[in-house]
Amino acid sequence: MKIICTRQNLIQGVTTAQRAVSAKNPLPILSGILLTAKDNKLKLQATDLEMGIQCVVPCTTQEEGSIVLPAKYLSEIVRRLPDSPIQIESNQGTNVIIRYGQSEITINGFDAEEFPTFPKPQSKNSLTIPEEELKEYLRQILFATLSDENRPVFTGVLMEILNGTLRLVTTDTHRLAMREIKDSSVDNDINIIIPGKTLNELTRVIGAADQQVTISLGENQIIFGMEDTLLISRLIEGQFPNYRQVIPQGHKTRIRLKTKDLLEASERASLLARVGTQIIRLNIEEEKIILTANTEVGRIHEEVPVYLQGESLQISFNAMYLIDALRAIGSDNIYFDLSGPLSPGILRPVEGDDYLSLILPVRTT
Amino acid sequence: MKIICTRQNLIQGVTTAQRAVSAKNPLPILSGILLTAKDNKLKLQATDLEMGIQCVVPCTTQEEGSIVLPAKYLSEIVRRLPDSPIQIESNQGTNVIIRYGQSEITINGFDAEEFPTFPKPQSKNSLTIPEEELKEYLRQILFATLSDENRPVFTGVLMEILNGTLRLVTTDTHRLAMREIKDSSVDNDINIIIPGKTLNELTRVIGAADQQVTISLGENQIIFGMEDTLLISRLIEGQFPNYRQVIPQGHKTRIRLKTKDLLEASERASLLARVGTQIIRLNIEEEKIILTANTEVGRIHEEVPVYLQGESLQISFNAMYLIDALRAIGSDNIYFDLSGPLSPGILRPVEGDDYLSLILPVRTT
Repeated sequence: MKIICTRQNLIQGVTTAQRAVSAKNPLPILSGILLTAKDNKLKLQATDLEMGIQCVVPCTTQEEGSIVLPAKYLSEIVRRLPDSPIQIESNQGTNVIIRYGQSEITINGFDAEEFPTFPKPQSKNSLTIPEEELKEYLRQILFATLSDENRPVFTGVLMEILNGTLRLVTTDTHRLAMREIKDSSVDNDINIIIPGKTLNELTRVIGAADQQVTISLGENQIIFGMEDTLLISRLIEGQFPNYRQVIPQGHKTRIRLKTKDLLEASERASLLARVGTQIIRLNIEEEKIILTANTEVGRIHEEVPVYLQGESLQISFNAMYLIDALRAIGSDNIYFDLSGPLSPGILRPVEGDDYLSLILPVRTT
Repeated sequence: MKIICTRQNLIQGVTTAQRAVSAKNPLPILSGILLTAKDNKLKLQATDLEMGIQCVVPCTTQEEGSIVLPAKYLSEIVRRLPDSPIQIESNQGTNVIIRYGQSEITINGFDAEEFPTFPKPQSKNSLTIPEEELKEYLRQILFATLSDENRPVFTGVLMEILNGTLRLVTTDTHRLAMREIKDSSVDNDINIIIPGKTLNELTRVIGAADQQVTISLGENQIIFGMEDTLLISRLIEGQFPNYRQVIPQGHKTRIRLKTKDLLEASERASLLARVGTQIIRLNIEEEKIILTANTEVGRIHEEVPVYLQGESLQISFNAMYLIDALRAIGSDNIYFDLSGPLSPGILRPVEGDDYLSLILPVRTT
């Protein structure tokens, strides 16, 4: 392999592919990025065997071929190269020479033959979503996934298409977030669980204005196709909990409030709770919530103005869950619907009915 | 104590005083900031018994008095308060109520009586230096201090005034940095060692344009006076090494080069050396340095253009020492003076003779 590439294109390709390299992978070859040069295109691929990322950048191919280079060193070196044309040439064996100006770096790579076969996209269904929109939808729901790998279903995101409506749902059993996208273009019904890790990496790759993500589904795999980048991931097997059963249909108390008011009060309350419990108590009255917390560090009494419909109420929440939900909701004004001190609270934007998140209260004596 | 203060003034006072709070101090009272209100001024003081910082901000004093509040919580709370007038009132005992809008936080403080007496500034000599200049001088020398507390002299900065010339000198025995300030206004000769930690904190407090730092010396203490802030520190006892003996007077080889060229080449070389040794070899020739490094990760060959006067030379350095020195020098073009492969190298700005740094080479076989 022998190519010439700009520093900027190399950085983009390496940074993108590197997202699929797992720091804790036991196989040395998986710490590398597979570079393949052909037809004036440099393809960079990496995988942790669960997720794979492929990025294609333009180059001048002087000699076709492929090589695997250690992702960490490649990325650090490329970042520090001068802004001049960069030549990469694989030498005898797995040695690779990176030339720039009058200088050169030789690093040891791996044989491309040893790199695991990159999963071939084989898609049955596909739909497209604007990158910016998908990024925001994911931001609104990913916070409610679990990080405990022993319960894989809860580390994932349910993607359900039913009667033309796409729903993204997450839950860690204490809270739940759901986003609906009504104008789905897929006819078939679908019910799959996508790893949260995959979607977290996806949010770091997407976001360009006026670009679309094409989502394709294969046997036990999902493919996200962007302009120069492809992200392939296995799906999580198992049964996602029946979220419809969990979401209460009515409410006895509805308050309308400014997201910022309750968020900032909860953030202050949680400062005091760092050491002990994160419980905050909400006294919901006619025109205000009185938010209180009492810890060994001190105590807080906050008043947040609200409009109340229905019954007044006392209820307690884990401050961190409330903070996460308020940060994610992406709306200046919200409804907070409640049905008693032991029933879940539901947060919805005042405008639109395509998002909600649910938090279980904390039982206090 | 009962005061009203703006959020901005409180943040400034708390952030400044907090720099003297040591995270690992065993005395609980020293995790606090002493607040004293008098004459519409709020004085905030903190100390780790080696260094003390005092900051005065305007307030409305409703009741004179003083209290000690935990620095960590106070700082986090103040940052998250709304931008409205903030009232701080010490209640019964050591309880303190922080009121803002319709809300309040109560935290537990300490009795002001328990706070160690803040060292009283007692100065014999004083000189003034513009804040921006002192900040840059300190940046140029602090990198060459040692962090090993077992050899206290090398963790400090020699401040010497001799015949009207002020010199700041640091060394960790492998390298040395020296800055001269010629227009010193002090007549007496002075030779003291200031803790590097103190000066590091000082660089974070100073830097305002058109402001002066007044440096005063007392018995075994030094005081830095800024507009609203006072930093007091003990001095380090001991004998600073005779730096004059270490600095060679002549040279056999002088090269002139662009700082950026050698810095970037050294940074790239050090990327390969992360795991093993940090040794880089310089082959100094007529018009270029050939910089090479060879590690288990790979090898690098860089060419840096130079103007050579005198003998060509092969010499090796620790890449990190070279990088630190090149980053600190603050000049686009430098002289690098050498006298053989086992003699120290000296870096000087091309313009001005008031700064130099010295690096010992590495003996290679």
